[in-house]
Amino acid sequence: MEIKAFQDYYPDDLAQCYGCGYLNPHGYQIKSYWDGEESISHFRPKPYHTAVPGYVYGGLIASLIDCHSTGTAAAAKYKEENRSMDSLPAIRFLTASLKVDYLKPTPIDTVLELRATVKEVKGRKVIVETRLIAKGEICARGEVITVQIPEGMKIGTTKKK
Amino acid sequence: MEIKAFQDYYPDDLAQCYGCGYLNPHGYQIKSYWDGEESISHFRPKPYHTAVPGYVYGGLIASLIDCHSTGTAAAAKYKEENRSMDSLPAIRFLTASLKVDYLKPTPIDTVLELRATVKEVKGRKVIVETRLIAKGEICARGEVITVQIPEGMKIGTTKKK
Repeated sequence: MEIKAFQDYYPDDLAQCYGCGYLNPHGYQIKSYWDGEESISHFRPKPYHTAVPGYVYGGLIASLIDCHSTGTAAAAKYKEENRSMDSLPAIRFLTASLKVDYLKPTPIDTVLELRATVKEVKGRKVIVETRLIAKGEICARGEVITVQIPEGMKIGTTKKK
Repeated sequence: MEIKAFQDYYPDDLAQCYGCGYLNPHGYQIKSYWDGEESISHFRPKPYHTAVPGYVYGGLIASLIDCHSTGTAAAAKYKEENRSMDSLPAIRFLTASLKVDYLKPTPIDTVLELRATVKEVKGRKVIVETRLIAKGEICARGEVITVQIPEGMKIGTTKKK
């Protein structure tokens, strides 16, 4: 049985994101999964995702941490509500605040691993901590404060095609 | 006389960045300039730089704030040292910590304006505050702690071609 990623459950109108939308052909299309109590994602940067030669561009790192964290926030909320991820209305989160500490230069010639833990689920707010690991070392650490998209925004109300 | 952007002075080995390197054909190639005591940059997002339909992807916002801030940090340091931006060795900054508060959804169908102020220059550390403005409204606010690249890293020592 194929295991679906968090992002595979997003309805079409929520699947356009440059970072994590499977319907955005230009974007990163990251995929996040549970791995026990943590969530995990892998991404191989392209050679042009560089900052200085040999190292990954910080904006990409921030982007990956952002999208992996909002995806994890949604998955955590489904879990809290004891709902399956394909049930409607879709639960999706936006980023209210993103903080990334760059601990060391991130090598570009490897697969990057993102590992997130859910720090807090409180009503419509979920706080996620995500670390970015390359070649076995934590290169960046992010804290993302996410807020559930209000139903009034009229997105995520249709079934994924 | 054409006014050169901060990034136009980067030596070749520092001009590869996905966010601000003029030698990266895949990247954003942002350009930053002084505007009085503030620095300014403009960027028009592509339709696919989206988060949810109609709005800009948060990872792009973080990326723009990051690169505009590191560019501004370098320009501020040249100013402090009373050096012209084409003098060697090149001064460049890396991001140690990036914090972005997303205040409201950023519309995608417009030119985004970045405006930065230098909050602190202390030795090799420069703190920059950058706000992102769209259609006259501040949509995001960033604080970026940047650190000057050590000369031992052996980049930025050659003249720009």
